[in-house]
Amino acid sequence: MANLDSVLACLDLNLDRALGRLTELLKIPSISTDPAYAADCRRAAEYLAGDLDAIGFDASVRDTDGHPMVVAHHDGPSGAPHVLFYGHYDVQPVDPLELWESPPFEPTIREMPDGTKRIVARGSADDKGQLMTFIEACRAYKAETGGLPCKVTIFLEGEEESGSPSLNPFLDANRAELLADVALVCDTNMWDRHTPAISTGLRGLVGEEVTIKAASRDLHSGYFGGAAQNPIRVLAKILADIHDDDGRVTIPGFYDGVDELPDDVRAIWDSLNFSETDFLGQVGLSVPAGEKGRSVLEQVWARPTAEFNGISGGYTGEGFKTVIAAEAFAKVSFRLVFRQDPARIRAAFREFVTSRLPADCAAEFAPHGGSPAIQLPFDSPWLEKARGALSEEWPNPAVMISMGGSIPVVGEFKDRLGMESLLIGFGCGDDRIHSPNEKYEMTSFHKGQRSWARVLAALGGAAG
Amino acid sequence: MANLDSVLACLDLNLDRALGRLTELLKIPSISTDPAYAADCRRAAEYLAGDLDAIGFDASVRDTDGHPMVVAHHDGPSGAPHVLFYGHYDVQPVDPLELWESPPFEPTIREMPDGTKRIVARGSADDKGQLMTFIEACRAYKAETGGLPCKVTIFLEGEEESGSPSLNPFLDANRAELLADVALVCDTNMWDRHTPAISTGLRGLVGEEVTIKAASRDLHSGYFGGAAQNPIRVLAKILADIHDDDGRVTIPGFYDGVDELPDDVRAIWDSLNFSETDFLGQVGLSVPAGEKGRSVLEQVWARPTAEFNGISGGYTGEGFKTVIAAEAFAKVSFRLVFRQDPARIRAAFREFVTSRLPADCAAEFAPHGGSPAIQLPFDSPWLEKARGALSEEWPNPAVMISMGGSIPVVGEFKDRLGMESLLIGFGCGDDRIHSPNEKYEMTSFHKGQRSWARVLAALGGAAG
Repeated sequence: MANLDSVLACLDLNLDRALGRLTELLKIPSISTDPAYAADCRRAAEYLAGDLDAIGFDASVRDTDGHPMVVAHHDGPSGAPHVLFYGHYDVQPVDPLELWESPPFEPTIREMPDGTKRIVARGSADDKGQLMTFIEACRAYKAETGGLPCKVTIFLEGEEESGSPSLNPFLDANRAELLADVALVCDTNMWDRHTPAISTGLRGLVGEEVTIKAASRDLHSGYFGGAAQNPIRVLAKILADIHDDDGRVTIPGFYDGVDELPDDVRAIWDSLNFSETDFLGQVGLSVPAGEKGRSVLEQVWARPTAEFNGISGGYTGEGFKTVIAAEAFAKVSFRLVFRQDPARIRAAFREFVTSRLPADCAAEFAPHGGSPAIQLPFDSPWLEKARGALSEEWPNPAVMISMGGSIPVVGEFKDRLGMESLLIGFGCGDDRIHSPNEKYEMTSFHKGQRSWARVLAALGGAAG
Repeated sequence: MANLDSVLACLDLNLDRALGRLTELLKIPSISTDPAYAADCRRAAEYLAGDLDAIGFDASVRDTDGHPMVVAHHDGPSGAPHVLFYGHYDVQPVDPLELWESPPFEPTIREMPDGTKRIVARGSADDKGQLMTFIEACRAYKAETGGLPCKVTIFLEGEEESGSPSLNPFLDANRAELLADVALVCDTNMWDRHTPAISTGLRGLVGEEVTIKAASRDLHSGYFGGAAQNPIRVLAKILADIHDDDGRVTIPGFYDGVDELPDDVRAIWDSLNFSETDFLGQVGLSVPAGEKGRSVLEQVWARPTAEFNGISGGYTGEGFKTVIAAEAFAKVSFRLVFRQDPARIRAAFREFVTSRLPADCAAEFAPHGGSPAIQLPFDSPWLEKARGALSEEWPNPAVMISMGGSIPVVGEFKDRLGMESLLIGFGCGDDRIHSPNEKYEMTSFHKGQRSWARVLAALGGAAG
């Protein structure tokens, strides 16, 4: 344990330097979904590969058809396990820009009235701050001991926020290089500020963009209004039909493969003392809006959803324009649970839309990613060791939770490489990821590094 | 008639010069609804006042709280009637810009396969090309005869496309100066390319922008999806509720004041041999989308509508963002007929929306203009003289029609000045006003000038 203690001390001593490195990374606007930022994505990959090289990894930037991957290898002690660390260097778009209190790519340290500090920037929590906790732990291990307690491969993606189109081809083409004993995925939250969490359940995701088209051009609503189909009206009607009055999704077959929550899992969740009032209250809401008769935890962890993530059509600028648009579109996503099949959900949605089209209207669809839900085994030895290590670092022992969000890479690691993942992250529920003023707690950044040092030591010790 | 013949010959001879003047006016991007173009609106007003001064009018640019008005006076023969000509120099926005085949403010003459020519530019038909037909007729009259056959006041507005906020205060403040025996309004269409029309009925308009708000910020659809209200979903549901399956508007009280079409008007419309197939077919449609059991002419001339002119919320850029938006908005307009009351319709819509809001949601409203429907008397002596003059110019005699669009100034002339209007315009149904590639037929521009010379002569002769 002397080694680990000196590593932890090293992390404490070098927090400001680590913060400086994170700041450099956060300044790069690596928005993967917008082609205008392709060069910035590459720059972020090169920055990370350079940093990993400096630590002593054998790091490389690997081209794909989209944004590049970063892959870096470091040996471990003979007989020690091989871990694959996964994170992503790309970030979400920043709009609406006017709601940011400081520019999204000028990282700002803000001290709160209670004395805590936070790092405010796009990507601070999702996922640059998180992935740097692992890299800093490795750096300190190398500095203090000259090596790492496990064989470590670091694998950083640049398309996580845009459907990961290059991920599967890359995993397939580099299977031997990436296969490890267990994957460590750092893109999730703690249970609360004092309680670390390992996420063992994840909802899946299907994204669809649907465009409704009617007339061959925009029309004047005076001349044609009353006689011409209005794509906004058609789209609104179809979207409105997707939920019934009890909040259930009406698409035929949507609930195929959706199980009721097992009693043992329900018992674990009941023990978490989750406050629905606090969860909704933090964002100005008070009444659960999902399926009637389900708890909020069920609604966000164990029930599927249909959400409308964007909609646009007609004149949306200042003032008014009496136009009937030629087309309108919506971005729709489905969160999946248990055994729901992404391909079947996508097909059922498309059939639902096309079967509702009135005369003279057409629908076009564009897919945006698809992944099934994930459930990790509760009895994994890796899970037990990581739980113990995390419980050492934080005031409360680590808990096992589920997640409403999707991390498709976990499913791909399992399907393509046969590799389980440990989902360990240090985000907080109020980090505003995907929203203006995204932040990462300084405590998350600092104790996250210390946590990874402990986890690496525990996993490495497993081989001894 | 010798005078009129020489005026008509002068118009024929100077068509190219007239086209040059229209081109100068069309180059000015006088988009009234967007504050970025305020200086251009003023420039258009100053251009027109300068041109009218050059003809011999006493012209001035008159400031308002918004865009300026142009008012110009010219005396007529003793005992001749006084006519007020109305047009508007402002234009609609140009988006979607990428659909224009030539830049909207670089007027282009396009020759069609059948040998006809058209002027392509934003505002060519609505309303710069139209208002210039009258100014050119005055110019030729002055050049050939040294005077005008009527006393003429020209009144040009710069806010017609943005709800005319300054119109009523200006009319009230300048009542004595603007009051004439009859108003001539040039902002309407012919019945077809060979048949001039005088519009005697106009639908009214109420515009509303509604914004639905839920959470205090944008949310991640993984963390909150299923538990949080989604404003796009709430908005879509409310919009979908506005029409029933028969295309009728469900807002309580909406049809108060809506009469069935009188038999004599229905007889006139039946005689027009209107082709529903051609009307819808020109914009790629085939099936009337309005109230079931109503003809297309009824749907667009004599029935009220609710149309959704714009909608926006959440992420609408390239790619995908799994966000639940904090708010979403729609621009909604209602076309009114007969005795529907704009204020009551607006209030009923707002009540309809607020009564449907679920918990944690709020609605905000912004009004965009409101005017009742108009019906002009069929037995006016001005109408008879104008019909005769128009029938002289065109292959077919003039017909009396209604219009689906709204021209609020006609109601204000009646209510505030006690003045009837003759709505005479030379637009065509396929002019794409408010749409990309707006055009004005060269025939409309040329024979429109000749028509006004004939109408002025006929109205002036009325005093003889």
